[in-house]
Amino acid sequence: MSKKNAFYAQSGGVTAVINASACGVIEAAREYQDHIGNVYAGLNGILGALREELIDVSQESVDTITALRHTPSGAFGSCRYKLKSLEENQAEYERLIEVFKAHDIGYFFYNGGGDSADTCLKVSQLSETMGYPIQAIHIPKTVDNDLPLTDNCPGFGSVAKYVAVSTKEAAMDVASMCSTSTKVFILEVMGRHAGWIAAAGALAQEEEGDAPHIILFPEVAFDKETFLAKVQKTVDEKGYCVIVASEGAQYADGTFLADAGTTDAFGHKQLGGVAPTLATMIKDELGLKYHWALADYLQRAARHIASATDVAQAYAVGRAAVEMAVAGKNAIMPAIVRDSGPEYGWSVAEAPLADVANVEKMMPKEYISEDGFGITQAGRDYLLPLIQGEDYPPYKNGVPLHAKLKKQLVEKKLDKGFDI
Amino acid sequence: MSKKNAFYAQSGGVTAVINASACGVIEAAREYQDHIGNVYAGLNGILGALREELIDVSQESVDTITALRHTPSGAFGSCRYKLKSLEENQAEYERLIEVFKAHDIGYFFYNGGGDSADTCLKVSQLSETMGYPIQAIHIPKTVDNDLPLTDNCPGFGSVAKYVAVSTKEAAMDVASMCSTSTKVFILEVMGRHAGWIAAAGALAQEEEGDAPHIILFPEVAFDKETFLAKVQKTVDEKGYCVIVASEGAQYADGTFLADAGTTDAFGHKQLGGVAPTLATMIKDELGLKYHWALADYLQRAARHIASATDVAQAYAVGRAAVEMAVAGKNAIMPAIVRDSGPEYGWSVAEAPLADVANVEKMMPKEYISEDGFGITQAGRDYLLPLIQGEDYPPYKNGVPLHAKLKKQLVEKKLDKGFDI
Repeated sequence: MSKKNAFYAQSGGVTAVINASACGVIEAAREYQDHIGNVYAGLNGILGALREELIDVSQESVDTITALRHTPSGAFGSCRYKLKSLEENQAEYERLIEVFKAHDIGYFFYNGGGDSADTCLKVSQLSETMGYPIQAIHIPKTVDNDLPLTDNCPGFGSVAKYVAVSTKEAAMDVASMCSTSTKVFILEVMGRHAGWIAAAGALAQEEEGDAPHIILFPEVAFDKETFLAKVQKTVDEKGYCVIVASEGAQYADGTFLADAGTTDAFGHKQLGGVAPTLATMIKDELGLKYHWALADYLQRAARHIASATDVAQAYAVGRAAVEMAVAGKNAIMPAIVRDSGPEYGWSVAEAPLADVANVEKMMPKEYISEDGFGITQAGRDYLLPLIQGEDYPPYKNGVPLHAKLKKQLVEKKLDKGFDI
Repeated sequence: MSKKNAFYAQSGGVTAVINASACGVIEAAREYQDHIGNVYAGLNGILGALREELIDVSQESVDTITALRHTPSGAFGSCRYKLKSLEENQAEYERLIEVFKAHDIGYFFYNGGGDSADTCLKVSQLSETMGYPIQAIHIPKTVDNDLPLTDNCPGFGSVAKYVAVSTKEAAMDVASMCSTSTKVFILEVMGRHAGWIAAAGALAQEEEGDAPHIILFPEVAFDKETFLAKVQKTVDEKGYCVIVASEGAQYADGTFLADAGTTDAFGHKQLGGVAPTLATMIKDELGLKYHWALADYLQRAARHIASATDVAQAYAVGRAAVEMAVAGKNAIMPAIVRDSGPEYGWSVAEAPLADVANVEKMMPKEYISEDGFGITQAGRDYLLPLIQGEDYPPYKNGVPLHAKLKKQLVEKKLDKGFDI
């Protein structure tokens, strides 16, 4: 087997643990030096490949690479940029091949979500479609937990833990003040089309009836009357009501509760404002004092409260990607497989990329309680193992210490740039 | 010295560490059993005294009391309720005396902020004004850090650590995506009139020029032009801009950037909406893509990332209050005193309550940088020690484990209730 260099890139919204996957890739690649030469990381994701801006990972120390494991964000830069189809923009693929050829790249590791899986699949077919031999492995990452074939997505467990912990703490705050102050607290969380993150709020509950009392999922049509009745009933019974609302909460006709009206680079609607919409509703119709929080990026960046399970899995899929590449595989994704049996256990297996790309995994109906405002025991059984364990980063000066990369770029070998 | 019972109550907005003060009070009181009989905690703060709803702390186990140290919120219930002056509502003071007498209460420990210090002062004067002998000690607590005479307020260090950690993590997220995505991120934090909490965002900086690039303080008049110019300049230079904005940010004429228009029980304006106001401004005038987060209660409830220094100080002032009471003191507050010298160290001393009540400590001008958008080295030197150390709670099922109190009420001894 001829030794080739590897290209690694981070794609789409970053997470608390995507760098743990990078750490897995790089540490494994360093172990397989008979198969893999240098690892080049794309500066700002796939844009780094198109622009021939390749970070020379060999310049980073062992300690720096180890520190990636506890560093949130995308250490090499990520981007929201979806390659068009071969028919629509062949120039992009030709440019990729040009850059790969120039730097002797034979392995393509793409760390992202559903859109990135699609890009990775297209790259995996370059050998067939454009005659360039390359092995492309997709490394799963998304806080939304919406990739198919994998039991869960690295990145999700940590945001789930953040939401569960934050909901529990804020709910206690509200409970202790509700006799004279706030009666309703709303936490707005991410999740455009799937309610996985909102569902994690339920893990704050120790007993039935504990906060959060209401969870709003994109999967359940929002009905104002039923919602307000449940809020009032909860306040009457408990003295307060805690709501975890998915940003994707929507009416039966698919209208989002709050639609900022803007779209991101992938053409997805950019949401925000569910919490204030609900708060206004509650104030106007029920006259109850409210507070609300919008976790926004804090939730997906919160490496300080990452799930140890999530960190371990993120690292493992990174390593597995390299092992699969070295074993000659192409067009696959290392997926998390949950052991059968009552005890939680997991391993990593291959999933064909063709079945992953552009498929969005929704919450199964049986995870959502009958009234649509909570999760079932089945949902709890699924979610609970994913937030287990704390994996604290080291601290310096009272704040977490993170990897600082040199990000030294490899010398360009191509005459021309690429306009994007 | 005749043995008397003690009354303890939590007042106003709760914090991540107010229960650590409760723990200090209760553990110390149990050690001074020759002076102090039972500790009765007000259910929902001072309302518990007025309603004769007294939690019998002797029913709580040693382990439960120990667990208060890592439990956020007000474990006994807190309230926003300010006693009027003796002239305005003598009936309230007569009721207090009635309840104190009925339960043989000779010690009054009031755990709160500026308004509570005022109430505590009034209670301390009951012996003089209404002939009822009582020793009243105020235990400082406020995330706003706005009490005078104490170097800092228990509760502040933990919210400061939360804001510093969250700002650092979110800033890394934004930095890694800014080439194709969000350019401006705004974190709105608490702080009605004093910018202490917003200032803590600066502790996310490792080097000059690091995020946050702009901090908005209530103490500095907001100027739209200067602000927008700084945002644009930062985005031009760094590729992104991170802003920490105090909810109390205001124009030169004192108008808040966003004024929800409602008022709380103390007559304070209830704020919210600085971040969206700034975001709209940035979008309209600069056309930059933004995201914003509103930490709201998450920041003051975040016991999972509490400052170990803060926890230790909260506990210490609780203990000190009891020791001062046992030593026969009245109308005082245990205050944190910072050692002189370059090494940080602290101790607890007495501060006269008359000088504490109704005085709001603002950020010193010399802590704010010349351009008004950051802090000086003096500000950093003051703030940094307060967020040192991590004091992690125990976890169960992936979420923090908290004290669960029985909250068994003492049998009422008075015939009539009290209408409030």
